[in-house]
Amino acid sequence: MRLRTPAAVIAFVLSMAVTRHAQTKTIAERLGYPPDSKLLIIHADDLAVAHSVDAASFDALDKNAVTSASVMVPCPWLNEVAAYAKNHPDADLGLHLTLTSEWEVYRWGPVESKDKVPSLLDSSGYLWPQPGPAAQNIKPEEAEREIRTQIERALALGIPPAHLDSPQGTLFATPELFTVFVKVAHDYKLPFLAAKVSDERKKLLALLTEKDIVLDSVVMIGRTVRPEGWKEFYAQAIRDLKPGITEMIVHLGHDDAELQAVTLDHPITSSAWRQRDYDLVTSPEFKKLLEENHIVLVKWRDLQKLLK
Amino acid sequence: MRLRTPAAVIAFVLSMAVTRHAQTKTIAERLGYPPDSKLLIIHADDLAVAHSVDAASFDALDKNAVTSASVMVPCPWLNEVAAYAKNHPDADLGLHLTLTSEWEVYRWGPVESKDKVPSLLDSSGYLWPQPGPAAQNIKPEEAEREIRTQIERALALGIPPAHLDSPQGTLFATPELFTVFVKVAHDYKLPFLAAKVSDERKKLLALLTEKDIVLDSVVMIGRTVRPEGWKEFYAQAIRDLKPGITEMIVHLGHDDAELQAVTLDHPITSSAWRQRDYDLVTSPEFKKLLEENHIVLVKWRDLQKLLK
Repeated sequence: MRLRTPAAVIAFVLSMAVTRHAQTKTIAERLGYPPDSKLLIIHADDLAVAHSVDAASFDALDKNAVTSASVMVPCPWLNEVAAYAKNHPDADLGLHLTLTSEWEVYRWGPVESKDKVPSLLDSSGYLWPQPGPAAQNIKPEEAEREIRTQIERALALGIPPAHLDSPQGTLFATPELFTVFVKVAHDYKLPFLAAKVSDERKKLLALLTEKDIVLDSVVMIGRTVRPEGWKEFYAQAIRDLKPGITEMIVHLGHDDAELQAVTLDHPITSSAWRQRDYDLVTSPEFKKLLEENHIVLVKWRDLQKLLK
Repeated sequence: MRLRTPAAVIAFVLSMAVTRHAQTKTIAERLGYPPDSKLLIIHADDLAVAHSVDAASFDALDKNAVTSASVMVPCPWLNEVAAYAKNHPDADLGLHLTLTSEWEVYRWGPVESKDKVPSLLDSSGYLWPQPGPAAQNIKPEEAEREIRTQIERALALGIPPAHLDSPQGTLFATPELFTVFVKVAHDYKLPFLAAKVSDERKKLLALLTEKDIVLDSVVMIGRTVRPEGWKEFYAQAIRDLKPGITEMIVHLGHDDAELQAVTLDHPITSSAWRQRDYDLVTSPEFKKLLEENHIVLVKWRDLQKLLK
């Protein structure tokens, strides 16, 4: 299976079919809420990728404008996140297990020694720029080695992860990579990003156990939404939430010189996109919208506790 | 020998004693200038470390406000420099062969596979933060492996180096490391940063051949100069230039959010320092000062031609 664009990968994540598990109670009930509660994780991606992203995301976490975030361990600003985690032990940080290096003029390699994970590298010695070539070339055993190393590095730096996911969906791109992802999550007893939306792809189902937590839906704004439609997209998304648990993925940052250069020639999750997401989630209107729609904000750490 | 601070290392570089070589002509004469010319390389350090540094340095190179610059190959913005080099084939770029990762919350590792250069890494898997511990711990053969890999990476990306030097002077910190530095420079037929100032340290002299180009002096502003003394320091430095060849090392950048975060808690070559250096070298007053003092601006590429 080849997935060449982030959009295709996201679509795949959203379409992962998961059968109803034999849990007798809903996640809402297990967390102590009424069974028909609308639970929402508002999740900021890509911590450690750039200072601009860190600054906006820390601010949004501090304001409870997002409930959770995930960290890219191979990226250069990891120690900035470690310093934040040290000063904010309750921050709900997971790991954005990173097997790609997607930007044009700003790149990174693996955390593991390159000799041990050669299939993860493009010809320039960085991680593959896109999930398509990454998924085609990466050997699952080397992906496993690298993501275990990323988790151990985060633990060593004082960032105990509350959950696991994967930027650009690379670890959801083939059954072999998804197998590695689930296996490692199980080993570390961590919840991970998986959502139940009816679909044909039954292969992946066998990998999940009854104990695994599966989200009811995942929401992320797409490239077809124009800047002037931003507020309406999120307002509609909140009004449309169904009972159950949803993750809303946002990409935060400031539209400044650093992030403009990082996201050069990438309209998706560009610096302007991230500024719009930041402005939106930190706005009083968004807070009011959540209240008016009786949304219950939850964290991955809450879900992690259900696994114990 | 232990050198713990950048200042100590710089002082060491400046004090490297080199005997008079048996060249019958001065460098100025060999370059076609009168023998008593005051030749000056104005050199921007640290390209690829941050977008802010790249943007300011590219601008200064474009304006001929600096003649030369050097690139840190392990840093995340290397491809930004490669793109610039592709569009500016005449830009005088050398390599700032990097064995340290000096900033607090923004770090990088080696280019070589970590397994092959374990002595280059601190406990967190990045390059050593300071030249003192770096010089104490790094095995010369691993330093050689890494700097050869950095040169090969630069060549592969279309950045043919015009010269070699070393950030924080790590490669000048012990005779063993300096030996590696000179050996690699000789192998690639590249000029490198070495300056003749009378001193006791005779050990290093034997490493240089008669063919090597040795600068008469190196000038860099120090931490004791207050912001209000910036202009006067540079004016005095230009007025004091003697006949011969001098490198003036400057650190360029913009005092913006990215560079403030990169240089957190480092007063030396901070973002404000780099903004002052940028403002100074690009000012009309500085250009006038160079003209009034009959300074001849030269490049490392000019010196490189003398080695052929």
